[in-house]
Amino acid sequence: MPRPSRWPEVMAAAAKVFRAKGYHGATLEDVADEVGMLKGSLYNYISSKEELLFSVVRPPAEQLLSEARALAAEVVPAPEKIARLARVHAGVLAEHFVYASVYVHEVAGLGRYPEWAAMDSEYVRLVRAVLAAGVAEGSLRTDLDLRTAPHVLIGALNWLTRWWDPDGPIGAAEMADRISGVFLDGVRA
Amino acid sequence: MPRPSRWPEVMAAAAKVFRAKGYHGATLEDVADEVGMLKGSLYNYISSKEELLFSVVRPPAEQLLSEARALAAEVVPAPEKIARLARVHAGVLAEHFVYASVYVHEVAGLGRYPEWAAMDSEYVRLVRAVLAAGVAEGSLRTDLDLRTAPHVLIGALNWLTRWWDPDGPIGAAEMADRISGVFLDGVRA
Repeated sequence: MPRPSRWPEVMAAAAKVFRAKGYHGATLEDVADEVGMLKGSLYNYISSKEELLFSVVRPPAEQLLSEARALAAEVVPAPEKIARLARVHAGVLAEHFVYASVYVHEVAGLGRYPEWAAMDSEYVRLVRAVLAAGVAEGSLRTDLDLRTAPHVLIGALNWLTRWWDPDGPIGAAEMADRISGVFLDGVRA
Repeated sequence: MPRPSRWPEVMAAAAKVFRAKGYHGATLEDVADEVGMLKGSLYNYISSKEELLFSVVRPPAEQLLSEARALAAEVVPAPEKIARLARVHAGVLAEHFVYASVYVHEVAGLGRYPEWAAMDSEYVRLVRAVLAAGVAEGSLRTDLDLRTAPHVLIGALNWLTRWWDPDGPIGAAEMADRISGVFLDGVRA
């Protein structure tokens, strides 16, 4: 539907309310209060709470997926791709921390909505393809468990939404390097 | 408060409802409906929704913490402790999958409640102490990033609640070994 002029405010308010109350606990009334408009006016912008959640989380999710697609198609060794993918992932989290946290907590991996389940699966498949190419080119372990390994990396990155402060001393690029460093080389001496 | 006899049913219903609707979206009425009792009767068991959530997630959280404490105090090399810790963690997730998922999605790392923030922090500190001891004994890398590494392991394990089926072909012990294997040795050839 065409969006009237206060759409960016509505998106920002929705992200804030979803973050504070969780998707299920938030009401459209809360969002309207946060923007300072009547609940009825909110229906000029969206038709349901679900549509509002998806509007909030779609831009960062699509950005991550599209950058991951481009990266997966490049011709560089897998370890470098993994390091760059981690930077893209942590960068998207940092840039859209509130929205991305909503996605990670309320949508990712839960399979609640077919459109999002398809995006989740595509992302896992892209990471898995990068790892498989690394095994084929000899840069990654031949005994690598391709079923589990993508989820280890994605889980470690998504878990950043629970403990990392993107405005703190460790920025997105450095944090990504630390995580991809552990993933690539392990912790054993 | 003393618990009347249908307490196990109340706990099971609460876990199911929290899992389906999220903590914020679930109501005590939903839980009462699930048990098949009046909402008023539920107040013989608990005084608030928050108390119900904590009752549901406390047993698995305390079990994990207590096993992690015992393990951290043992005198075995750090890589073995990490592998065993992963088995304990995945085992608790598997045994209490619905309750543990509620904990991971609604409580872990969010700092919403002081008691739980303290349990979260203690768990991270225990994992960090195991890693630090490994660096000191020479079994883990001297350049290990002790700030980030515990969260990589914990995040990868907690993320199991988003993609792993504990009743599927890969059981808890094997899944734990796969994750601790990537964590310990990395994916690079």
